Amino acid sequence: MKYCSECGNKVSYYTPEGDNRPRHNCHFCQIIHYSNPNIVAGCLPVYQKNKILLCKRAIEPRRGYWTLPAGYMENNESVEAAALRETREEANAEVNIISLYTLTSIVHASQVQMLFLAELPTPEFSSGIESLDVQLFSFEDIPWNQLAFQTIKNALTFYIEDYKAGKFPLHNVVLKAPPKQLIKP
Amino acid sequence: MKYCSECGNKVSYYTPEGDNRPRHNCHFCQIIHYSNPNIVAGCLPVYQKNKILLCKRAIEPRRGYWTLPAGYMENNESVEAAALRETREEANAEVNIISLYTLTSIVHASQVQMLFLAELPTPEFSSGIESLDVQLFSFEDIPWNQLAFQTIKNALTFYIEDYKAGKFPLHNVVLKAPPKQLIKP
Repeated sequence: MKYCSECGNKVSYYTPEGDNRPRHNCHFCQIIHYSNPNIVAGCLPVYQKNKILLCKRAIEPRRGYWTLPAGYMENNESVEAAALRETREEANAEVNIISLYTLTSIVHASQVQMLFLAELPTPEFSSGIESLDVQLFSFEDIPWNQLAFQTIKNALTFYIEDYKAGKFPLHNVVLKAPPKQLIKP
Repeated sequence: MKYCSECGNKVSYYTPEGDNRPRHNCHFCQIIHYSNPNIVAGCLPVYQKNKILLCKRAIEPRRGYWTLPAGYMENNESVEAAALRETREEANAEVNIISLYTLTSIVHASQVQMLFLAELPTPEFSSGIESLDVQLFSFEDIPWNQLAFQTIKNALTFYIEDYKAGKFPLHNVVLKAPPKQLIKP
């Protein structure tokens, strides 16, 4: 942020009085502009308990890689409504939410991802505008080396383990950026 | 938003091509400015399982009313870290998180509130800068008519019920604005 979104004048970046971290301050409007993490909501859609619906991304980042249907939550909707909307938009699929399944804080990206375990009652789906392909995968056919994101790999790994145990508890994960690689002289 | 935060020129509000809802568009930067829900993170701190730590708000909204320690999640922290930070800031209390306890979509306010059940290991706490008072309450002493928010009332009600049952599952709630009152002629 360089300019105030309310008045168009330049903002100053410093820690306001009584606060403990720097913010964008507008001296004309007397407004402090806060920036907060975004929520990504989605589903882990399962058909007959042992087939998982994945979407091949048609957009960057990670175009051509497989993912679960998920995307940014919009204003004035619930987390569940966002997850169902993304599943509809990306996979043309109507699912029934079972429970919140993963809550991942992606600390370096200031994102929080929430994936709901969901039942796909009938094998009806097709590629939405943001997908190149949508398919059901048996556990042994999951394209592990072509998954788009670490959070997707985690969710699929949790599901296969939990399927064996017959219980599907919430998985709470904190992801931090990998340490920077040392460059050898 | 009236002006672009990157270049300071006026933005236009309309639905971009390929999108399905209006956004603030900057024609100079070719940027679309998205607005998304904010996360409020906090704790339901419990001492010896049957006493709950509440804070009397020193700030608006709802100054003078009782609440659980909670506040906006910051960039580059996890949801749990935000909940622990708010508990430290508002109640000078160090707690141990047990599990995610309530997930509330406050649809009309574009907010998502996540409260963690947490153990207060020792009865050590005091008022932080945003609190007028901090106290432990037995169930029968909870000031139901002086609670700050519906989400807090819900969380306390859930806890007292769950305490009887001995199980503390995640409670997933969607709150929508109450219907507008009819004004009689």
